[in-house]
Amino acid sequence: MKQMESIKPALLPETLSLFSEANALTPHLNDSNSKKSRKLKSDLCSAILDSGLKDGMTISFHHAFRGGDKVVNLVLDTIAQMGYKDLTLASSSLTGIHSPVVEHIKNGVVSKIYTSGIRGELGEAISHGLLKEPVHIHSHGGRVHLIKSGELNIDVAFIGVPCCDEFGNANGMNGKSRCGSLGYAKIDAQHARKVVMLTESIVGYPNHPASITQDLVDAVVEVEEVGDASKIGGGETRLTSNPRELLIAKRAADVIINSGYFKQDFSLQTGSGGASLAVTRFLENSMEKRGITAEFGLGGITSTMVSMHEKGLIRNLIDVQCFDSGAADSLARNPNHIEISANEYANPSSKGAVVDRLDVVILSALEIDVNFNVNVITGSDGVIRGASGGHCDAAAGANLAVIVAPLVRGRIPTVVEQVLNVVTPGQSIDVLVTDHGIAVNPRRPEVKERLLNAGLPVLDMEALVARAQSLTGKAEPIEYDDQVVGYVRYRDGSVIDVIRKVKSE
Amino acid sequence: MKQMESIKPALLPETLSLFSEANALTPHLNDSNSKKSRKLKSDLCSAILDSGLKDGMTISFHHAFRGGDKVVNLVLDTIAQMGYKDLTLASSSLTGIHSPVVEHIKNGVVSKIYTSGIRGELGEAISHGLLKEPVHIHSHGGRVHLIKSGELNIDVAFIGVPCCDEFGNANGMNGKSRCGSLGYAKIDAQHARKVVMLTESIVGYPNHPASITQDLVDAVVEVEEVGDASKIGGGETRLTSNPRELLIAKRAADVIINSGYFKQDFSLQTGSGGASLAVTRFLENSMEKRGITAEFGLGGITSTMVSMHEKGLIRNLIDVQCFDSGAADSLARNPNHIEISANEYANPSSKGAVVDRLDVVILSALEIDVNFNVNVITGSDGVIRGASGGHCDAAAGANLAVIVAPLVRGRIPTVVEQVLNVVTPGQSIDVLVTDHGIAVNPRRPEVKERLLNAGLPVLDMEALVARAQSLTGKAEPIEYDDQVVGYVRYRDGSVIDVIRKVKSE
Repeated sequence: MKQMESIKPALLPETLSLFSEANALTPHLNDSNSKKSRKLKSDLCSAILDSGLKDGMTISFHHAFRGGDKVVNLVLDTIAQMGYKDLTLASSSLTGIHSPVVEHIKNGVVSKIYTSGIRGELGEAISHGLLKEPVHIHSHGGRVHLIKSGELNIDVAFIGVPCCDEFGNANGMNGKSRCGSLGYAKIDAQHARKVVMLTESIVGYPNHPASITQDLVDAVVEVEEVGDASKIGGGETRLTSNPRELLIAKRAADVIINSGYFKQDFSLQTGSGGASLAVTRFLENSMEKRGITAEFGLGGITSTMVSMHEKGLIRNLIDVQCFDSGAADSLARNPNHIEISANEYANPSSKGAVVDRLDVVILSALEIDVNFNVNVITGSDGVIRGASGGHCDAAAGANLAVIVAPLVRGRIPTVVEQVLNVVTPGQSIDVLVTDHGIAVNPRRPEVKERLLNAGLPVLDMEALVARAQSLTGKAEPIEYDDQVVGYVRYRDGSVIDVIRKVKSE
Repeated sequence: MKQMESIKPALLPETLSLFSEANALTPHLNDSNSKKSRKLKSDLCSAILDSGLKDGMTISFHHAFRGGDKVVNLVLDTIAQMGYKDLTLASSSLTGIHSPVVEHIKNGVVSKIYTSGIRGELGEAISHGLLKEPVHIHSHGGRVHLIKSGELNIDVAFIGVPCCDEFGNANGMNGKSRCGSLGYAKIDAQHARKVVMLTESIVGYPNHPASITQDLVDAVVEVEEVGDASKIGGGETRLTSNPRELLIAKRAADVIINSGYFKQDFSLQTGSGGASLAVTRFLENSMEKRGITAEFGLGGITSTMVSMHEKGLIRNLIDVQCFDSGAADSLARNPNHIEISANEYANPSSKGAVVDRLDVVILSALEIDVNFNVNVITGSDGVIRGASGGHCDAAAGANLAVIVAPLVRGRIPTVVEQVLNVVTPGQSIDVLVTDHGIAVNPRRPEVKERLLNAGLPVLDMEALVARAQSLTGKAEPIEYDDQVVGYVRYRDGSVIDVIRKVKSE
């Protein structure tokens, strides 16, 4: 080009380079036949090869399909067959369906894990020392913080979706296996060096709405199934008919109603436990009676929340993850059912998370102690069988964090002197509601006052611990090895607790 | 906490720190009164102070209000009054309304500029050597590339919007002064260290849809006006009644129809020139007659495009910027009118831009030369009075890039032996349509063949140059100083041309 000849290099500072060719940075534009279809891969194997995956790298997954997920196992099996070793598995969470990971650890395919939760065989195995490096258990907000602060560096994100176009525009709302919100996957798509979409169907361009947009996607591969949507709500998100859970839920609703936070335009998050979900039902009556509507419901959105939204009681649903298929369908249907990323939901280093604006959150606990510290990660035998989830995120943000839990479960006390593992610090917890009474954190005397004035059965934490012990007897201490098998990472990345290896018989 | 005492530091690798306090990273959560309103600033001055702006930093703006923008001048005036110096002004574009920037350069407030375009007094002044460092003229896609590759490092983004909630969720679709798509602002919000929203109204939480989300926003300040929406479409986006422009438009439509790319599911972008916009109207008839519908229209969306969308002729509108208020209203109304970021639109280093999938783009030119190089930045006197815009981006991506331009404008030839400045390399241009005939780039013999077969008046470029010269006479060469006053940056960041200082009388 004549002009270029006339630009003497001396005219340019060193940091600037001269133009060479229109497509120097975009060689794919030279082939008009392939430029639209260039991301489509014939099979998962080619997608993995083309991603540049190497031994020692980090691969990520989202857990929107929860117990119905089929992507982690599919990809790990394929990767194992291809001979990769020493990978870090960073799934936003893992569930009981992911037992095959045990074999991949044994075979050296997976050597390190970041996750919010682990259940079943994998939790057992890790608790018994399967992994050389302790597993990192993070919260949903904390995961984004670990990614943004550089500790969790995703090389290849594998993102399962029901529908995607050939350029990578994807959502979880349409298609066969609908998971709804892609709140966790959005973060991986934004930060992974390479992003591979696994989709059940290739739909027409442009697929819209695009929860994940084409400018973030490297490859698209069609697979038979990414998840079983009917299992998203399985287990943890059931609606309870257990009379004790209903009693707890009713009491929790009374706590909220009398807490000082039950006002026009309040906001609400419920966890995924049985009692926690049932609270919403009991609140509904009071909201209707008093003519109160909520500004938003946050979560983890359930069909119960959707039903209140459609009745006009909760004006907006803010949704990082759908807890059942009713919620997924609502996301496609209701304009004020809003999909958000995990950064918007709960990242403590984001410029403003929705949890910061929560009035009330209802959360579950495996254990809670006299200092209101909560364990949602290890069972009474010390074995990993839970999930950090958004627990400490929502508790830190909410004006009123309420734990709902039975005082004892079978012969196992829930309210204890000291939890086996802390996930959420007592500082963030305001009220405990059990079937044997309510306890209020001494940090919140004004809340205690209000509940007492309302005639609710408020006891001291120590009294609840004593009651629990009188029912179950004093538990034998668990025998641990010194070996640390897990780090419980608080939402700010710090280590709030370590999980120790349980002694094998 | 008991647990923490039991974690011996020796158990932790050096990279991990021990938990200290629930809100160590989130001190704002300790104050439940201010945590929801913490981003609200009483006035622009406090917002600027709190942003940590310092001399020598880079501030950014979006140009969705085009000729009606009120934010750049407001913020620069305030910043000047506050005594800041030596700032880099990075606006996605600048227009004739931004003449006050001249004074801010003279006073040392602004010392460096990145922009897609400059017009009016500011262009005159810079062309005469006002800025010590040459202005960087980038394309819309190239700007995102400069940001992502680290050259353009935004310290504080000032983003004007018609509506925003107190946490920063904002869009351009609702409120008084609606600009529609916030495609350029999205990028600044994602990448600036600090993001200040200037809004005409604070609306209820959560403002939805959120083109810019709360997790990216540091501060929100209410101002009287951010823009005059009636001036968005002023000037460059008018619908022509000029018979010569209509002739060119009709011919351009004939070129498209016979080019081989006028097929079911084709895609289309039109620039903002009079003839370029009119092409759409002529295509409409042929689409209806032949029963052809387009997969998408891209842009720079206009009311003409919206009308074709609402008739079902263009199934999707993909919108980085609304070119008039009709388009802005459509964005709020039509579910398949899709807002995209400038990264999705045109960044050559994104993982897939929409321009990559364009079949046909219609673009304007101030000058085009025998090698099909196009100048859209300097007038025939060598003075900066145009904009790079998405010109080279869309031309590089499209299968058929058509330039529409009159052969001469008054006594000034448009088709010349050599353009004064190259913005888009001839390599990316396929066809030139003038009122005196059509020329096809020799790189596209098959297109030339098709147009000839259709009986269209295809000439050689040299013949068009000769015709132009016979009408205007040979132009006197412009007298330049050696001083470089502008770098024309190609979309990949390279310098495709330099703009020289014009000699003052």
